[in-house]
Amino acid sequence: MNQPERLYTLYWKDGRLYILDQRLLPHRVEYLSCTRYREVADAIREMAVRGAPAIGITAAFGMAVAAYEVLAEENTQARLRSYLAEASRELFKARPTAVNLAWALERIEKWLSENEGLSLKDIAAGLLREAEAIYREDLENNRMIGINGCALIPDRASVLTHCNAGALATGGYGTALGVIRASVAEGKKVHVYIDETRPLLQGSRLTAFEMLHDDIPATLVTDNCAGSLMKQGKIDLIVVGADHIARNGDTANKIGTYSLAVLAASHNIPLYVAAPLSTIDLALPAGEDIIIEERKPEEVTCFGNQAVAPDGIEVYNPAFDVTPAKLIKALITEKGVIYNPDQEKLYKLFAKV
Amino acid sequence: MNQPERLYTLYWKDGRLYILDQRLLPHRVEYLSCTRYREVADAIREMAVRGAPAIGITAAFGMAVAAYEVLAEENTQARLRSYLAEASRELFKARPTAVNLAWALERIEKWLSENEGLSLKDIAAGLLREAEAIYREDLENNRMIGINGCALIPDRASVLTHCNAGALATGGYGTALGVIRASVAEGKKVHVYIDETRPLLQGSRLTAFEMLHDDIPATLVTDNCAGSLMKQGKIDLIVVGADHIARNGDTANKIGTYSLAVLAASHNIPLYVAAPLSTIDLALPAGEDIIIEERKPEEVTCFGNQAVAPDGIEVYNPAFDVTPAKLIKALITEKGVIYNPDQEKLYKLFAKV
Repeated sequence: MNQPERLYTLYWKDGRLYILDQRLLPHRVEYLSCTRYREVADAIREMAVRGAPAIGITAAFGMAVAAYEVLAEENTQARLRSYLAEASRELFKARPTAVNLAWALERIEKWLSENEGLSLKDIAAGLLREAEAIYREDLENNRMIGINGCALIPDRASVLTHCNAGALATGGYGTALGVIRASVAEGKKVHVYIDETRPLLQGSRLTAFEMLHDDIPATLVTDNCAGSLMKQGKIDLIVVGADHIARNGDTANKIGTYSLAVLAASHNIPLYVAAPLSTIDLALPAGEDIIIEERKPEEVTCFGNQAVAPDGIEVYNPAFDVTPAKLIKALITEKGVIYNPDQEKLYKLFAKV
Repeated sequence: MNQPERLYTLYWKDGRLYILDQRLLPHRVEYLSCTRYREVADAIREMAVRGAPAIGITAAFGMAVAAYEVLAEENTQARLRSYLAEASRELFKARPTAVNLAWALERIEKWLSENEGLSLKDIAAGLLREAEAIYREDLENNRMIGINGCALIPDRASVLTHCNAGALATGGYGTALGVIRASVAEGKKVHVYIDETRPLLQGSRLTAFEMLHDDIPATLVTDNCAGSLMKQGKIDLIVVGADHIARNGDTANKIGTYSLAVLAASHNIPLYVAAPLSTIDLALPAGEDIIIEERKPEEVTCFGNQAVAPDGIEVYNPAFDVTPAKLIKALITEKGVIYNPDQEKLYKLFAKV
């Protein structure tokens, strides 16, 4: 395995896509080596890679992987087109909620439709360049989200975050954690409270790991602590990422975000959502139209191979919930901060692009 | 090991106290055999036995165990008195929040002060009888709580509960789960949503186990699901137990209960607290005076021996939070249902006893 010195969510080397297997973090750093798009789709489905921006980037690379598969077979243009169509469908189906997956695949398809007539080799190379551009732009967007979000974070702020909207969920730097990183870089003192985020513990495993890595003071809590922390006056603001934002501002994010939003409103604490424009879905009128993925019961009933619930208990395990726009104080994007997001403001945001 | 056919939280046999080790449930049924009060205090401290009523009962038996220790040494009355005083102090210190522990030890001390001059043997036998009376009365109280609470549970109700306020948390039958059991016994259809209850998963491990055992339809969810379930209209009411109720009705219960109470209020869903009078502390004016136990970080960072968070991350792990009385629709006790509990109503409740 070629492991780079910095921890990358994914990287391309010698004709292969390497995907950090985040299921093994924080204790093991291993990369999945993918030479087939199906391996990439599996990595997304099984959440080796997760986080809406990161799975968008990964899917784009998955399309390049598919093109190189066909190139290796020295096959025809017709075969390439049908194989890429199949790959796009399969990658799209890997996770249903994050809109960045659809966004990245549409961008790849647009590139393909604009570049008909190229050789197989040039198409494969072009798709790889396009995936790399999506990756690079996401990182740049996160840095802008950080800069834009900074203004919302007072010095000595105590910030609660949920799940992992960090470097590992994106092309790097992070959305919610990007805002925190940028505030710290500006010299502000920030203390982060990290919800462990059941069932998959992205808070304990990934956000805690990122905060320790960057020497940002942080305290890990169970998801059950959030209300008590707010009541004790220990939380000044909440910042989270997003998986799918409807055009009225309603936001799907990791299960538990809606509970936090209600708690925040009741304690008069602002909740901010940090996300790139690629997470905003202008085609979708409102949150109730967002498809919420339900995942397997074992995520709740087991830790590794160790069962923690009796056999036969029924489980409901939605991966996301929807927070209505009215509970979101502001949406932090690479193009600016949108207070009290609504349809008009989101249309305007895209008109500026 | 003498294991009875029914699953008892604890039982006395042949001069020993057997305590069900609930840390091993639902997959292993093992009893700790105790012949020294320190073993009993350890079982409470390490949460082999948990649940406010159950640890009160256990502490009472712990005092009988201490008396039999002295009796076995054929020792003096003076030694008995000093040893029992020491045992009472140690048992009291085992957990700081549940008031039932203090309540049961005070009752034992009252019995002792009323029975001075008895032989060592009669004192030991008398303490055992008193502990057995506390045990039996708790079971009877739970049955009355169930009968009284029934009226609050509509037919076809969908009920959310948190932690385990069941047979395993009490002398049997349960407080919150007693209300559910009594409703089912009356012929009502009830569906229970069970919060898994991090960090120690009393919901997954114990409440799920009790519901399966009694064939009561139930669905296990992560604590993060509660808000989403309420928003979807899937929850008609919430019923929980309690660890310490101040005389104004403010209630300490398992961490996460306060979050549920705020969510319930915001969705116009009633929250009921089911608890015996032994959990109500008339000496305590309000919730802010309740001591909240903080437990070790490993409860959050590890599952068994498996670490799930990076080394060095700071953890805040309170075992309880306090729900203000104004968020509690009613308190369900063995002496009746108290709507909108407050100091005047709780004083009156005790005046009736």
